[in-house]
Amino acid sequence: MFTVDFRIRPPFKSFLKTAMYAGAARRDGITRKVGFEPSPAAMGQSLPLLISEMDAAGVDKGVVVGRVSGALGNVDNADILEVCALHPGRFVPIAGIAPLPRKAAILEAERLLGLGFKGLSIEPGGLPEPLHYDDRRLYPFYAFCEDRNVPLVIMGGGNAGPDISFTAPEHIDRVLADFPELKIVSAHGHWPWGTQILHVAFRRPNLFLAPDYLMANMPGMDDYVRACDSFLADQFLFASAFPFAPVAGYAAWFRALPIRPANLEKIMGGTACRLLGLQPEG
Amino acid sequence: MFTVDFRIRPPFKSFLKTAMYAGAARRDGITRKVGFEPSPAAMGQSLPLLISEMDAAGVDKGVVVGRVSGALGNVDNADILEVCALHPGRFVPIAGIAPLPRKAAILEAERLLGLGFKGLSIEPGGLPEPLHYDDRRLYPFYAFCEDRNVPLVIMGGGNAGPDISFTAPEHIDRVLADFPELKIVSAHGHWPWGTQILHVAFRRPNLFLAPDYLMANMPGMDDYVRACDSFLADQFLFASAFPFAPVAGYAAWFRALPIRPANLEKIMGGTACRLLGLQPEG
Amino acid sequence: MFTVDFRIRPPFKSFLKTAMYAGAARRDGITRKVGFEPSPAAMGQSLPLLISEMDAAGVDKGVVVGRVSGALGNVDNADILEVCALHPGRFVPIAGIAPLPRKAAILEAERLLGLGFKGLSIEPGGLPEPLHYDDRRLYPFYAFCEDRNVPLVIMGGGNAGPDISFTAPEHIDRVLADFPELKIVSAHGHWPWGTQILHVAFRRPNLFLAPDYLMANMPGMDDYVRACDSFLADQFLFASAFPFAPVAGYAAWFRALPIRPANLEKIMGGTACRLLGLQPEG
Repeated sequence: MFTVDFRIRPPFKSFLKTAMYAGAARRDGITRKVGFEPSPAAMGQSLPLLISEMDAAGVDKGVVVGRVSGALGNVDNADILEVCALHPGRFVPIAGIAPLPRKAAILEAERLLGLGFKGLSIEPGGLPEPLHYDDRRLYPFYAFCEDRNVPLVIMGGGNAGPDISFTAPEHIDRVLADFPELKIVSAHGHWPWGTQILHVAFRRPNLFLAPDYLMANMPGMDDYVRACDSFLADQFLFASAFPFAPVAGYAAWFRALPIRPANLEKIMGGTACRLLGLQPEG
Repeated sequence: MFTVDFRIRPPFKSFLKTAMYAGAARRDGITRKVGFEPSPAAMGQSLPLLISEMDAAGVDKGVVVGRVSGALGNVDNADILEVCALHPGRFVPIAGIAPLPRKAAILEAERLLGLGFKGLSIEPGGLPEPLHYDDRRLYPFYAFCEDRNVPLVIMGGGNAGPDISFTAPEHIDRVLADFPELKIVSAHGHWPWGTQILHVAFRRPNLFLAPDYLMANMPGMDDYVRACDSFLADQFLFASAFPFAPVAGYAAWFRALPIRPANLEKIMGGTACRLLGLQPEG
Repeated sequence: MFTVDFRIRPPFKSFLKTAMYAGAARRDGITRKVGFEPSPAAMGQSLPLLISEMDAAGVDKGVVVGRVSGALGNVDNADILEVCALHPGRFVPIAGIAPLPRKAAILEAERLLGLGFKGLSIEPGGLPEPLHYDDRRLYPFYAFCEDRNVPLVIMGGGNAGPDISFTAPEHIDRVLADFPELKIVSAHGHWPWGTQILHVAFRRPNLFLAPDYLMANMPGMDDYVRACDSFLADQFLFASAFPFAPVAGYAAWFRALPIRPANLEKIMGGTACRLLGLQPEG
C-alpha cells in the first residue's frame, strides 16, 4: 500500500532548534502519554535512522511541512529543500510562510512555489499578534492560494493559538465557505473539536483532516476512526507528526484500525497523492 | 409499537422543487454515506411507494414539516394540507413560516393554525439575513408560540446556517430558558454538538431532539443512544428525514439500537403523540 | 486504597436549606436518571448515616466545599468548620466565597484561610450578575490565590451559569494560561465539554477535573475514563457530589471502571492529598 506520511519533521538543521527537538524530554513525555515509545531516530536526532524507520514501516514519502510560528519556532525553508534533495523522492516540501503583510507574503509565496514547494503552511494562531483563521487580514492570502490552486496546510488543533478558541470550528468553517476551491489541510485535525470538525468536513469537501498523534488513544478518537471508514475516507490524511510519534509505531497502530482496505488505501496515501499532484510509484 | 416518523417530506408538488428532490444525486450520495440504500419512493418520487414503505415499516404516521428557507428552498403549506387530506390519518401537518416581520408572521401563524396545522417550523439560519436562534428579533414570535401553546420545530443542526456557529448550543439554550413553556423540537438534534445539546436537554425539559439520519453511523451517535435509554427517553423523537434516509431502512436500524422497550416506545411514537396532541390508535 | 471524595455536602445546618436538600424529589430524580439509588443518608438527612456510608465505602475523607451562589443557595462557612470538628479527620473544609468586590473578597479569604480552610470555592456564573471565568473583574482574586498558593475550586460544568456558554472551555483556558501557578479544580469537570476540556487539561497542568455524578453513564463519559487511564491520571479527582450520587454506590461504580491500579490510586486519593497538603494515613 503506497504510503505518504503527511507530516514529518526530520532531524535536520533548523528543525533541530525548534521546541520539538530542543525540548526532547517534554516531547518524549508526550509520545509516551499517547502510548508510543519514542523513535530512536528522534532521540538520536539521526536522519539516516529516520530513513531506515520509514523503510521498515513501508512509508514511501514524508511530507516535510515548514513552520513560521513565533511561539513554536521557525524552520528555514531552504533546509526543507536541502533535505528533500539529499533523499530524492522520499520527501515532499511544503513551505512555512508568514501570511502578513499581505504583499510581501504573496511575493514570497510565488518565490517559494517557483523553487518547487508543493504547498504552503501558515500558523495564524502562533503569530506575534495571534489571528483566528477567519480574520479578514488573512483573506488576501487565501485568495492568492485559491487562485493559484495551492494546497494550504494550517496548524489546526491542539495548541494552535493562545487558547482553545483558536481551534473552535466556526473560524475555519467560514474560510472554507468563502474560498470553496481552496484546499485546506488541518494538521492535528482540529482536535479536540472532533465531532464538530467532522461535520465541517462533511459539509465542505475542500477540508482535509490530518489529526496525527493527537488522535492516538485520545478523547474523541473513535469518532475520527468511524468517519475514516465512511464519509471522511476521501478527506483524511495519514500523518505521524514525527518526532512526536514514531513513524513506524504510528503506522503500525494506524493500519490496525478498523478501516476497510479500500478506504485505508486512500487515507494512507491515495488522497495525499491527489492533493499534492504526486504519482504513486510501483 | 405505535410509530410516528417526526420528519417526512413526501414526494409531492412543491417538495419536488426543493434541493432534496431536485438534487437527487447529491441526496442519494448522502444516503449511502450514512449507510443506507436510497428508498425506491425517493428515487421514483412516488407518493404511493412512500405509503407502502410506511406500511411495510410499521410507521403509523409521518409528520410533514414545511419549510421557508431561502437557502434550502420553500414548501407551499397548502401542499402539506393537500397531502394530508389525500391519506387521512397518515400525515400530521406542521407549517413552515417566516418569523419576520413579526406582525405578519403572527397573523400568518394564526391563519395556518386555524387551517389545522399542529405546529410551526422556522429556519432562522436559512433566512436572507441569517439569524441565530437567540436573535432578539425572533422573541416576539417565540412569545406568540409560547402563549398559544404551539410546538415549534426548528432546523437545528447540520447545515442550519451559513456556518457551524448557527447550531452552537448556547443560542437555543437561551431561548429555552427565556421561554420555559415553549416546546421546541430540534430537527437534526443539533448535531454535531451532541454532548453539549444533551446537557441542554437534560437541563431544559422543553427541548425535544430529533437527530434523524445525521445520527446514523455518524460521529457522536453513541452518546445520543446512551441518552435515549436514560435521561432523554422523554425528549427524543424518532425521525428519518425522508428522503435523506429511507423510512423502512431507518426504522429497522433504529429499532435495533440498544434501547429498552419502555423507552423505545416513547421515542418511536409516545412522545410525538403527547407533543402534538395525537391519539395513538388501537 | 486511601480514598478522598472531593465533593461531599453533608446533611447539616445551612446545607439543608440549599436546593439539593430542600428539593429532595428533584434531586432523587436526577440520582435515578444517572443510574443510582438515592442514599439513605441523603433521603434521611442524617449525618451519622453519611459517616456510616463513608465507612462502608472505604472513603477516608470527604472534601466539604462551601457555596456562595445566588442561584443555587449559600452555605455558611462556619457550618463547614463545625461539621469538620464533629468528625475529626473525616472532612476537609473548603470555603465558599464571593469574589467581588475584590478588596472585601481578599480580606475575607485571608480570614477564612486563618481559620483552617484548605482552599476556596467560587461560582462566578451563579452571581447576581453572572460572570464568565475570564471576566477581568475576577483577576485580582485569581492573583491573590496564585500568590497565596491556595487551591481554587470553581463550579465548572452542568448548570454553572444561566446558559451553556458559561462552561465553554475558552474561558477557563485563558485563566489557566494567565495564572500558571494557580491550581484550579473544576467541579463537574466542565461537562458537557468533555473532549475540549480534556485538551485544556492536557495543555495546562494546573487544571484538575472532578466530573462527579455527571460523568456516570452520561454522554462523553468514555473519553473521561480513557483520559483517566492515560494523560489525566495526575489531574483527575474522584468526587461523588453527594447527595446527588450516593457515596458508596458511586465509589463502587468508579472503582470498577477500566483504570489501572496505579492510576486509580492517584485519582481516588493521591492527587487530592497532594493538592490539599493532606497526609494519607495508614
